[in-house]
Amino acid sequence: MRTREKAVVLLSGGLDSATVLWHARQAGYELYALSVDYGQNAFPELEAARKLCAAVGVADHKVVPIGLKALGGSALVEDRPVPTAATAQRHHGIPETYVPARNTVLLSVALGWAEVVGAYRIMIGANSLDYSGYPDCRPKFIEAFNKLAEVAVAEGSAGGRHIVVEAPLMAMTKAQIVEYGLSLGVDYSLTVSCYQPAPGGLACGRCESCELRLKGFAEAGHTDPVAYVGPGAS
Amino acid sequence: MRTREKAVVLLSGGLDSATVLWHARQAGYELYALSVDYGQNAFPELEAARKLCAAVGVADHKVVPIGLKALGGSALVEDRPVPTAATAQRHHGIPETYVPARNTVLLSVALGWAEVVGAYRIMIGANSLDYSGYPDCRPKFIEAFNKLAEVAVAEGSAGGRHIVVEAPLMAMTKAQIVEYGLSLGVDYSLTVSCYQPAPGGLACGRCESCELRLKGFAEAGHTDPVAYVGPGAS
Repeated sequence: MRTREKAVVLLSGGLDSATVLWHARQAGYELYALSVDYGQNAFPELEAARKLCAAVGVADHKVVPIGLKALGGSALVEDRPVPTAATAQRHHGIPETYVPARNTVLLSVALGWAEVVGAYRIMIGANSLDYSGYPDCRPKFIEAFNKLAEVAVAEGSAGGRHIVVEAPLMAMTKAQIVEYGLSLGVDYSLTVSCYQPAPGGLACGRCESCELRLKGFAEAGHTDPVAYVGPGAS
Repeated sequence: MRTREKAVVLLSGGLDSATVLWHARQAGYELYALSVDYGQNAFPELEAARKLCAAVGVADHKVVPIGLKALGGSALVEDRPVPTAATAQRHHGIPETYVPARNTVLLSVALGWAEVVGAYRIMIGANSLDYSGYPDCRPKFIEAFNKLAEVAVAEGSAGGRHIVVEAPLMAMTKAQIVEYGLSLGVDYSLTVSCYQPAPGGLACGRCESCELRLKGFAEAGHTDPVAYVGPGAS
């Protein structure tokens, strides 16, 4: 029997990365899930990532601590309130929830692990349609990273196969992602998208990430299975 | 008075990065030194980095924890003996002290911090002559990373100035680096290059890094100021 191809899947525990995890399973890959604890305030995401790995069945799941909090620069990794969709300040058109160079850091770590386990595929849930304007969620970012990957690691740099990053959700709307994920059997009740969950894990329903997610489920004609704080909550 | 340009300098605490730190000071930059604790066994390097920052005078120095140890794949971040220059095993011509994607990870974090502090220059001590064959120490790696940096962060991606990585030692031999550093006044007694220092901090004199360093000082006609375990030590 032929050895199965391996894929490293970046798994935040949110809706998009969960969909990518099931996408990779469907495509027949042996799954190596990689979560990064970069000091984000939304730590319930990591627990969600663990549950998703148990549900889908992975060969390995690593959680790598990366202390980006020390560098500041984002509402997501600093000890200040996460802005709502309405109040988020923007700089160069980019919201303050942007974590500088986050996807570059995530893909770099994934590249290292891919080389260690012998995976030639890395998958990330980056999405350029219903997204928040982050520069590192665009097709040209993925293309530039793939050019870098060709020369950055031992694999492929002296001839042989390159490690390739794929972003299967890049051209989908959030509604299309929800539809696709449900068709694959993703259990979205296990995912956490909220930047600022209330005590007990209820999603706030007001941050940019909740707003995009709710819009996606609504447009797809499905009900989001996660629990939200009531619309009247402060 | 004009605000000084800022540079983020990757500082391991070794000979090359110390030279780059003085190079950046000489060039007039305000210095933002960045050290990464990626779980390396050679932790005395981080203490050396702190001493070098105090000696050169920096605006800020951050030590960011990155848990690459969780991923394995290198003699430098795992709990196994560091090979000597003579015993190091190679894979695709690359020694086992290679940490997969290390410079990609380091530059990614530097890119994020550069954006936060408003630096348009990142400096790294990568060197393609007297080096150990690591793929991420070559000019084409730096070039590919710069292409990535143009699209990966908010700065520059919507027009405006790009953040640029510079590797000023790229084309120098180790002897030339030593000569250049001494001309800049680098205090090499503060640096730590050894992959496996003995108790008390003595350099082993036998690992690849010590071997390259000693060769550099010898060819430059200078004496290395750091203390080594005697040649008869086991």
